[in-house]
Amino acid sequence: MLSLNELALHRCELLTEHLTQRMRLHAGVLRMDCGARVIDCGVKASGGLEVGRQLAEICLADLGRVKFVPGDAHLWPGLAVAVQTDQPVAACMASQYAGWQITGEKFFAMGSGPMRAAAGKEKIYDHIGYRETTAHAVGVLETGKLPPDGVCRQIAADCKVEPASLTLLVARTASIAGSVQVVARTVETALHKMHELGFDLSRVQSGYGVAPLPPIAKDDLAGIGRTNDAVLYGGEVTLWVRGDDTSLATLGPSIPASSSKDYGEPFAAIFDRAGKDFYKIDPLLFSPGVVNLVNLDSGTFHRFGQLRPDVLKKSFTSS
Amino acid sequence: MLSLNELALHRCELLTEHLTQRMRLHAGVLRMDCGARVIDCGVKASGGLEVGRQLAEICLADLGRVKFVPGDAHLWPGLAVAVQTDQPVAACMASQYAGWQITGEKFFAMGSGPMRAAAGKEKIYDHIGYRETTAHAVGVLETGKLPPDGVCRQIAADCKVEPASLTLLVARTASIAGSVQVVARTVETALHKMHELGFDLSRVQSGYGVAPLPPIAKDDLAGIGRTNDAVLYGGEVTLWVRGDDTSLATLGPSIPASSSKDYGEPFAAIFDRAGKDFYKIDPLLFSPGVVNLVNLDSGTFHRFGQLRPDVLKKSFTSS
Amino acid sequence: MLSLNELALHRCELLTEHLTQRMRLHAGVLRMDCGARVIDCGVKASGGLEVGRQLAEICLADLGRVKFVPGDAHLWPGLAVAVQTDQPVAACMASQYAGWQITGEKFFAMGSGPMRAAAGKEKIYDHIGYRETTAHAVGVLETGKLPPDGVCRQIAADCKVEPASLTLLVARTASIAGSVQVVARTVETALHKMHELGFDLSRVQSGYGVAPLPPIAKDDLAGIGRTNDAVLYGGEVTLWVRGDDTSLATLGPSIPASSSKDYGEPFAAIFDRAGKDFYKIDPLLFSPGVVNLVNLDSGTFHRFGQLRPDVLKKSFTSS
Repeated sequence: MLSLNELALHRCELLTEHLTQRMRLHAGVLRMDCGARVIDCGVKASGGLEVGRQLAEICLADLGRVKFVPGDAHLWPGLAVAVQTDQPVAACMASQYAGWQITGEKFFAMGSGPMRAAAGKEKIYDHIGYRETTAHAVGVLETGKLPPDGVCRQIAADCKVEPASLTLLVARTASIAGSVQVVARTVETALHKMHELGFDLSRVQSGYGVAPLPPIAKDDLAGIGRTNDAVLYGGEVTLWVRGDDTSLATLGPSIPASSSKDYGEPFAAIFDRAGKDFYKIDPLLFSPGVVNLVNLDSGTFHRFGQLRPDVLKKSFTSS
Repeated sequence: MLSLNELALHRCELLTEHLTQRMRLHAGVLRMDCGARVIDCGVKASGGLEVGRQLAEICLADLGRVKFVPGDAHLWPGLAVAVQTDQPVAACMASQYAGWQITGEKFFAMGSGPMRAAAGKEKIYDHIGYRETTAHAVGVLETGKLPPDGVCRQIAADCKVEPASLTLLVARTASIAGSVQVVARTVETALHKMHELGFDLSRVQSGYGVAPLPPIAKDDLAGIGRTNDAVLYGGEVTLWVRGDDTSLATLGPSIPASSSKDYGEPFAAIFDRAGKDFYKIDPLLFSPGVVNLVNLDSGTFHRFGQLRPDVLKKSFTSS
Repeated sequence: MLSLNELALHRCELLTEHLTQRMRLHAGVLRMDCGARVIDCGVKASGGLEVGRQLAEICLADLGRVKFVPGDAHLWPGLAVAVQTDQPVAACMASQYAGWQITGEKFFAMGSGPMRAAAGKEKIYDHIGYRETTAHAVGVLETGKLPPDGVCRQIAADCKVEPASLTLLVARTASIAGSVQVVARTVETALHKMHELGFDLSRVQSGYGVAPLPPIAKDDLAGIGRTNDAVLYGGEVTLWVRGDDTSLATLGPSIPASSSKDYGEPFAAIFDRAGKDFYKIDPLLFSPGVVNLVNLDSGTFHRFGQLRPDVLKKSFTSS
């Protein structure tokens, strides 16, 4: 069985081949001095919908499908992003979750993708009991700048691979591809919240989520606000789980974003109220608006939370 | 031109390659003593959404596409299953229809897929004028148990192939893949009902259908109820047909499930009322909730039936 | 980088291979006396949904994706056609726009596809600054007849290719494939209208559009009416653009079809009122019902126009 990084690498090779030969995706492939490959999906490159879709699938280590679907007109017009996976823990927790803050040389990025499993620094890898040793590492950086050579070297060292065996895909939040890959995190945010609440994620077998693609913001901070709002107020996730119903009924109301005391305002307003300090925002806010749980063992269906088109409108039309 | 079984076999090879090498689909490939290959998509294996989607496409002999789409929120939340085919008679009648009851050695399964065309035992093959002689046979079994070796041998004999040239894909109704493949039968149920009503199916050129994926049930009997209700009360089919409009206007009101005297209650309740005897249920019940007919010759559009979210809710939330 | 005609040719080879070997798409491949290849998707061949989808993608020079999605039930039941592109000017203006009227030997067709860029006769190629020299040319003809040999020779000559290096895909409007490829023109009609209004199309980076597939009409004239109405009254487009907001706010209200004085009646009625003279119809009518503009530079979202299910119903149910 291929590792997460090998699965992602295979998709990077296909994408690189497309970029250099057949498809015109407004993305570019760069080689750093250290040999690391950087696929620019939306930093200096303008990117687009399709490269964002592929970026999101690579971030899932190719263990999930991401698709554009027409949005629900009652929620927000235009496009929505759907994600589907039968490997939710591997795809979303071991790979897609943006749990690695990359810093150095005046550079900052939220790091995600299967390289995290190679570095294996985060506690979540103890909880899910998965790390990997790999010859090639693949990561996604949500950032407004291309990573400096030294940062690439450091990431490679952390992943225990040669710099020439590191592939990084980069996009700013305020780009089409960058927004798509965040909005493709509906299932991931539900899983992460459930993990925080103490739910045993090995009970989750499959996941499906959909959220509207917000208008791309003018800068990354505004982009973080809108993409978060797309999930918090417009995201709906269905999870197929195993085990007892009591735990679902008890935990359920706490899963969707609406369970947070901060719920009800656009993320940007919550952020302002918190004095622009992320750590003062209730961490339990980060979850989809609606979570449906299908219990494969009991046949019971649970639905928690609600969608809030009013907050989406406020968020997506303010500057 | 490849036969239905060859088309399906090609997809089985791709699926087997994925299962053994690249994708983690929670399905397994077994070799029986007789040499038959069994792809477990949801009996002992847990299966999932993607393997269910592939199972459904193989059941159509690869002559239709099955896709997950966001469901209509006014009907039922979460996921819906869409099916599209330009070969409705070959894909749905010669292949997908579950017209072969497999029994023996305390084993029972609803048999479907292109192997039926190789066995050619059902009267429907006289009506549609199609049977096939094949070196390899591919079938789908909706069943709660893996097929015993003797049953595999018997199926191979009925299909006039060596046991080693038989591929069976299996899933219980109360599994994700098993439910997906049933709910992908919207177009098939419409065609079968029209055939029962005497409609000449060679007039049907293309079909598109969609129905919500119900919460997977706790056991197969409950699963049969919910997956049937998904089609009967939540399924909508569009068929592109040729010929006169009078026959469409006359026959039309009889096509959707609502034309049955048993219509209006969850399938489980109808089944109970019939003393748990399938043969006492009105056979004309089995059809989608809504059938749209587009007459390619006259340009006329006909719409018959209705969707019933109230019955879906009753069915999907009862145990 | 491959040219538009090379991109389309690659897809034609795949389609031809499918038609002759694996998939049963009700389409045929013909060789004219001059050597030109004609892929009949819906003139004498009956065609279907999938061949229509591929026809539409080839018409976009493979620089956009076309998908079937469930339609919005409040607008029109059944199927809708979604189109997505990150190369809107190349895909829609240089290739998909039906700007080449093909006539000769009592034959008439609306010509589209990348062959137009090889012929390079239309003024639009001066505006977008793109033409191409190609060894192979690929075109789409919306027509009720197969093109005569002499017409194929003339097209090849205009494209400066050997007749044997010309591929033409043909379908009448009143066929499934023919209707699909017209309804896949939502983004194209928005771009063309904006171009007519003087908007600099190089500002448009990506596009997404969706419109209902109308019931296929009984003849091509009625088909032109219904497919136009699908876009005018049921089409919604989202464009991601760059630059200032003032120009968007100023130009915006003029973009959707509703800005035309002829708006509000089915196209067939407008055509009748114009004495069946296309040139008396307001050219500004041809645009989607709703156009959403996302300004990538300012983060502003603009929405113009409205959908009209009442007009769709009138159009799609009249003969």
